[in-house]
Amino acid sequence: MHVLVLGGDGFCGWPTALYLSDRGNDVTIIDNLSRRAIDIELEVESLTPIRPLSERLRVWKETSGRQIEFINLDLATEYDRLVDVLTRLRPDAIVHFAEQRAAPYSMRTPRTKRYTIDNNARSTHNLLAAMVATGTDAALVHLGTMGVYGYGWSGSAPIPEGYLTVKVPTPDGDLEREILHPANPGSVYHLTKTIDQLMFAFYAANDQLRITDLHQGIVWGTQTPQTIRDERLVNRFDYDGDYGTVLNRFLMQAAIGHPLTVHGTGGQTRAFIHIRDTVRCVEIALLNPPAAGSKPMVFNQVTETYRVRDLAKLVSNLTGVPVANLPNPRREDEENDLVVRNDRFLALGLEPTTLSEGLLDECTHVAARYRDRVDLGKIVCRSVWRAGMATAEDLLTELPDESRPVAEPAAAN
Amino acid sequence: MHVLVLGGDGFCGWPTALYLSDRGNDVTIIDNLSRRAIDIELEVESLTPIRPLSERLRVWKETSGRQIEFINLDLATEYDRLVDVLTRLRPDAIVHFAEQRAAPYSMRTPRTKRYTIDNNARSTHNLLAAMVATGTDAALVHLGTMGVYGYGWSGSAPIPEGYLTVKVPTPDGDLEREILHPANPGSVYHLTKTIDQLMFAFYAANDQLRITDLHQGIVWGTQTPQTIRDERLVNRFDYDGDYGTVLNRFLMQAAIGHPLTVHGTGGQTRAFIHIRDTVRCVEIALLNPPAAGSKPMVFNQVTETYRVRDLAKLVSNLTGVPVANLPNPRREDEENDLVVRNDRFLALGLEPTTLSEGLLDECTHVAARYRDRVDLGKIVCRSVWRAGMATAEDLLTELPDESRPVAEPAAAN
Repeated sequence: MHVLVLGGDGFCGWPTALYLSDRGNDVTIIDNLSRRAIDIELEVESLTPIRPLSERLRVWKETSGRQIEFINLDLATEYDRLVDVLTRLRPDAIVHFAEQRAAPYSMRTPRTKRYTIDNNARSTHNLLAAMVATGTDAALVHLGTMGVYGYGWSGSAPIPEGYLTVKVPTPDGDLEREILHPANPGSVYHLTKTIDQLMFAFYAANDQLRITDLHQGIVWGTQTPQTIRDERLVNRFDYDGDYGTVLNRFLMQAAIGHPLTVHGTGGQTRAFIHIRDTVRCVEIALLNPPAAGSKPMVFNQVTETYRVRDLAKLVSNLTGVPVANLPNPRREDEENDLVVRNDRFLALGLEPTTLSEGLLDECTHVAARYRDRVDLGKIVCRSVWRAGMATAEDLLTELPDESRPVAEPAAAN
Repeated sequence: MHVLVLGGDGFCGWPTALYLSDRGNDVTIIDNLSRRAIDIELEVESLTPIRPLSERLRVWKETSGRQIEFINLDLATEYDRLVDVLTRLRPDAIVHFAEQRAAPYSMRTPRTKRYTIDNNARSTHNLLAAMVATGTDAALVHLGTMGVYGYGWSGSAPIPEGYLTVKVPTPDGDLEREILHPANPGSVYHLTKTIDQLMFAFYAANDQLRITDLHQGIVWGTQTPQTIRDERLVNRFDYDGDYGTVLNRFLMQAAIGHPLTVHGTGGQTRAFIHIRDTVRCVEIALLNPPAAGSKPMVFNQVTETYRVRDLAKLVSNLTGVPVANLPNPRREDEENDLVVRNDRFLALGLEPTTLSEGLLDECTHVAARYRDRVDLGKIVCRSVWRAGMATAEDLLTELPDESRPVAEPAAAN
């Protein structure tokens, strides 16, 4: 089928585009290269040396024999061009990754808060409006976030996949109602994904669009079977305080001997998924869209949950690098439990990549290999949730030499 | 106190600005005059001849001796100027009416859908971000809508004021949780108000902004004790298919002898409030803000509920004008019940203006007086919720003469 991958140059979008192409689909990437522009703004780079998109696509064609088209288009501001694209390409499916996706960046300044709302809300809504206007009957798969649910909200009940059955007291007794899980976003970024949900619900009901929302956990890992085929296809690896996700940050920190930066007590329990599983989940979702007229289908795109301090301990044990507890720049509970349902993807055949099998591999092959590219001034988180909150000083100002072994298996006992 | 009225040139904003000024507050209106621009776009005018804002303000000063400042500013696109205004004026309170407020307009075309989302989401978020950035500790009162709740969702339970207590099943038994009432918006316009709610919840929690959301019913009436003091202060009266609200449309239709346009069976039950009560409610809300750190306070700003066909019958009985059942351009239930809690405003002293006392007055003084200004081609609703839905032809092409009495009391038996 013909699939548009919106945001196909990003951390999840790029490996998804390659995977879907490799699986025999015709893939068109739509991206405005904003993620690369934000790298420039933050004066940081992916730990892995990513290539310009046109080079990536050329190498992919050489490697796989398959062509991926690229259209440089800003979803938030170029609605008319989007309409032209949908009219011309008549895609069978659309994967929508085209949003600003870092919570710390979304809280950094008034400008980045506003950019995150403006960009994400308008991109999603322009897409929905354009699909209706052009009669595009494509399955739409959107990357949401586990963060829409909040943490610790529902006691011992597992977080359901999108919808919660509640009892509403009425004069005639309790009424059972299935509701969209109440929104408890922890940042402006997460807020945008709760806004997306409302837009999806409306357009699914009013215009019978077929929409799937993937509430993804924290992605870790870098490479997929496709991105690993040539170094010029390598995926992004963000390690900085704004865009780096917690486990990848630990892996990079371990690789250079930087203390593992845990915010607060590290009692936050979070859900995780490997990038290899992300791309598989997207394909499963594309192949199993809801029926027209149904409410949006929601999958929880997670495979494991860990407490952040346990993750840090795991990496510390494997590598001998100590843990540093830093002030938490976020407003969140210090400790929470988390039980998440992910029955749907498992029922549809997902075989999860677990931390225990994938961790070391990732650590040695990626983080250690590119350790010299690290900017030590970008590791500590500096984006705070409210003005005046404390942040830490840089913990390292000079890259240690490579004499100390990294990811030494002996430490794993 | 010093109050900013955002959208202070509009149907609710203008009488609110005058009322608050009359009550001794220093009022500054912020408006981009977008409502007047949309009149030009739709080629329609307020039934009442509204004056340019600077003239309105000059007349208000002559009449009341009180000065209202005006700043022409687009909240959605002029963030930096908004920051300057907040920094300079340090308001004690902000009333936020500055949103596109017509459901039919919001469904009219892809452009108006996009404008409604872009304008409303960005205006609200820019305001919140600017308040945080400038440390503006003002009570914020926002005009929401009853439409966020949907109709008929909660069976025989009255619609609560914003928050619903539900039972969440868990392995350890039912957990009682107070949630924001699930969102069931019926148009892109209503969708924006559900988006606003999520933004308010986040900024109240993260930044301790003090926010009140007024879920208002359908406003009827035109004049307040302030707007009636001079004809040049007259409020808007929209009768067209996009911006006219149902009861005012019936009153205007009755005044010219046009059949009363009921959509579908008219079985829709809706909540109503007179514009005189709107302005009082806003003042009550301003004087009773939530504490910093509290979640947004929600009032249901309604005083009566009526089924649309019963309203039409009431007006028909009063005036002798027949009812016409037209195809419904909206996607909504044909029939619904509606019971709404409005305890908060009543407890705080609101004395509602009821239809039975205000109706005739409104009808004779406004609708009949300006009947010659009506454009008969603008009465039937043409904005449909989904492409291809049926609409009616114009029911009148020529204004009947004034020989037939309008709002004849004898017909009221």
